[in-house]
Amino acid sequence: MKRAIFPGSFDPITKGHQALVQRGLELFDEIIIAIGSNANKKYMYTLEERIKFIEQTFEGEPGVKVESYEGLTTDYCERKEAKFMLRGLRTSPDFEFERAIAQINKEMKPNLETVFLITSAELSAISSSIVRDIIKNNGDASPFLPSELKLI
Amino acid sequence: MKRAIFPGSFDPITKGHQALVQRGLELFDEIIIAIGSNANKKYMYTLEERIKFIEQTFEGEPGVKVESYEGLTTDYCERKEAKFMLRGLRTSPDFEFERAIAQINKEMKPNLETVFLITSAELSAISSSIVRDIIKNNGDASPFLPSELKLI
Amino acid sequence: MKRAIFPGSFDPITKGHQALVQRGLELFDEIIIAIGSNANKKYMYTLEERIKFIEQTFEGEPGVKVESYEGLTTDYCERKEAKFMLRGLRTSPDFEFERAIAQINKEMKPNLETVFLITSAELSAISSSIVRDIIKNNGDASPFLPSELKLI
Amino acid sequence: MKRAIFPGSFDPITKGHQALVQRGLELFDEIIIAIGSNANKKYMYTLEERIKFIEQTFEGEPGVKVESYEGLTTDYCERKEAKFMLRGLRTSPDFEFERAIAQINKEMKPNLETVFLITSAELSAISSSIVRDIIKNNGDASPFLPSELKLI
Amino acid sequence: MKRAIFPGSFDPITKGHQALVQRGLELFDEIIIAIGSNANKKYMYTLEERIKFIEQTFEGEPGVKVESYEGLTTDYCERKEAKFMLRGLRTSPDFEFERAIAQINKEMKPNLETVFLITSAELSAISSSIVRDIIKNNGDASPFLPSELKLI
Amino acid sequence: MKRAIFPGSFDPITKGHQALVQRGLELFDEIIIAIGSNANKKYMYTLEERIKFIEQTFEGEPGVKVESYEGLTTDYCERKEAKFMLRGLRTSPDFEFERAIAQINKEMKPNLETVFLITSAELSAISSSIVRDIIKNNGDASPFLPSELKLI
Repeated sequence: MKRAIFPGSFDPITKGHQALVQRGLELFDEIIIAIGSNANKKYMYTLEERIKFIEQTFEGEPGVKVESYEGLTTDYCERKEAKFMLRGLRTSPDFEFERAIAQINKEMKPNLETVFLITSAELSAISSSIVRDIIKNNGDASPFLPSELKLI
Repeated sequence: MKRAIFPGSFDPITKGHQALVQRGLELFDEIIIAIGSNANKKYMYTLEERIKFIEQTFEGEPGVKVESYEGLTTDYCERKEAKFMLRGLRTSPDFEFERAIAQINKEMKPNLETVFLITSAELSAISSSIVRDIIKNNGDASPFLPSELKLI
Repeated sequence: MKRAIFPGSFDPITKGHQALVQRGLELFDEIIIAIGSNANKKYMYTLEERIKFIEQTFEGEPGVKVESYEGLTTDYCERKEAKFMLRGLRTSPDFEFERAIAQINKEMKPNLETVFLITSAELSAISSSIVRDIIKNNGDASPFLPSELKLI
Repeated sequence: MKRAIFPGSFDPITKGHQALVQRGLELFDEIIIAIGSNANKKYMYTLEERIKFIEQTFEGEPGVKVESYEGLTTDYCERKEAKFMLRGLRTSPDFEFERAIAQINKEMKPNLETVFLITSAELSAISSSIVRDIIKNNGDASPFLPSELKLI
Repeated sequence: MKRAIFPGSFDPITKGHQALVQRGLELFDEIIIAIGSNANKKYMYTLEERIKFIEQTFEGEPGVKVESYEGLTTDYCERKEAKFMLRGLRTSPDFEFERAIAQINKEMKPNLETVFLITSAELSAISSSIVRDIIKNNGDASPFLPSELKLI
Repeated sequence: MKRAIFPGSFDPITKGHQALVQRGLELFDEIIIAIGSNANKKYMYTLEERIKFIEQTFEGEPGVKVESYEGLTTDYCERKEAKFMLRGLRTSPDFEFERAIAQINKEMKPNLETVFLITSAELSAISSSIVRDIIKNNGDASPFLPSELKLI
């Protein structure tokens, strides 16, 4: 069975994340959406809310799971016996960042493979931080969120 | 009448901002320099100081106005009946950021057009954050500020 | 009157070019689509064909003209008494190229201003070279061409 | 069965290509290395030589096949009933180019998915064009070629 | 005597920094590793610890010194009568940042020259922030640190 | 003695090249401007003309020499017993290209060090290809050429 981890903050999950996971299901039998926790970071939504948003988004989709984890992402992948990480690429600066992380991960866990999909053009500008910014400024973020979300 | 909004923090206004607005006046009849407020951001200069610096810079220039606003920049443009946003491009990472923002804005307000001018070479390294850094370290920031400024 | 030159090879004109000119008409009273000739370059379509494609695309649009020119683009702008050049930005490498050209042009003609619009996301991958590649390989390039084109 | 196409010129195959295909075999059951032909391009090695080099490189590896094709890569993928294309990413300009191609391909064949792996650091500078350049200048290109190659 | 300043936070020094300084010793007679202090920044290691780590790394190397400084880096270079700054380049975003800084420095101190070495491929992903992130998550950062370090 | 090679086509030498060599003389005792020959490339100026232009530019400067060479640049450096290559960086795409070349060179000649200076802002848009383009189109390229040149 091919299992992949899709790590991130998902604060909140966006249409961009949703499309990547759906495309990833063509490649992998199971995708675990894994919410990392960073003690230094302030989140707009609690861990419980972020998990609930993801569950709503992928309700009825048995191949998608959601979990939270602590510690290094590579250690978490090993604990879950996942040989793959799934990542989206949106822009050139994304690429440089992902290249460095992938290189470090390769040094730490040589058997863990990171697989990249390029975000489709019409979704490439969407990010959780832009969504948070719109919400904070009382704008309507719904065009950028999964239509399955019920609560934001 | 062609009215454009030139949004930013202007903490403080630099020679780079000044040159862009002057070049923009060839394109637009009126440019409103619009100071957005972000509750999470700490500024070096108060809103009043930042407005005063801009007024000094463009004294005697009837086509340039200065205002502050809250909420989304696109909503502000609509309230001001401005069909254009003016933005400067300095570097590749600037470009990627601006491309994402312009794409999101297009989704939210299809009739708002963002117009870009590329910063001239000798001004392309100047930014408000570099100016603040020089001032904090007791350096002389005057080569990077409008010569009209009286107080910094 | 605000007149802008939109220079290029247009071998052939694409949906991306078309959208840029239409957006540019909000800024300028007249846009001259100017086909530069480069003796060292091989074109897929003759100059006459390229002009005809552009005329078909903007038929009934009085603000858009098409011309060909020889020599430096900046000299051509001066001869046409155009104070503006219109350019589209699609990607980071585009940006670096355009920045260099804009800087050189500024040195040669200080009063000529280059105005940039960022290509919309769904059109940002389209270029004349990709269209030519599809046509050479017997693919269907029509999704990337102006719907007004009758002959390609 | 998950079948992927790995398209390119392979003039000649490098250590970089070799590593990508080996990593791709973790994801795909079969990888077809597909040599596209471009009438306008001059190659250093004939199609027969390039095929032979690839066969030497993957001798004894049943999951890897080599073929040549004409026409659009997306049409070829469809003919081979391959739902995936495999591509390597080395640098930021690579990324911009691949993003445009992936977007065009998505428009033409919505069910074809392009999967990217980032080249490992120590192989990221290797390209067929650098190898050709070394060989033309009588340098030793063997550190950059698969050790299985017998003839170059 | 050719003296160069290698400025940074070194929180902590990495294998990447170590290699750059060693390569720089081919160019310069003396390299001062200069730890700048930024009142707004939180460090993982104290100034004393960071100095000690650097001293351990370059023990027995007379051409390398370590100091801390306050104020602008350019002013510090002048006080030390150093005509050169040494900087490493790892990625494109690095480059854009360094280009802006070098341009500002040139305006402020025309006689100060910044010399760049490109980080070797296998070290290019290593940064102090990645090292700190690994340590915070209880991972093993030792592959990315100078082997001379005794205490982290 | 510190000897550096500054390799290129110099078709023709520009103000940008001139400034880099002058800055490089602060670092190196001798700089050899080395004109590589590429049988596949068409040049605007003959090798003799290109040498003469460089000699005119650096007349009376004993630390600068000009030579031509064939074969790999790294082999040439070894023959000249030069431990350094000098290169200018103008833009991000430049950086990506130089990074790959420097990495390949390091693999082939571990003791050869490539040293980079970033082109100053007002010269960063100048390249030999832009100069050739201006000359071919009967423009005035003199603002971009060394003032010492007598013949172009």
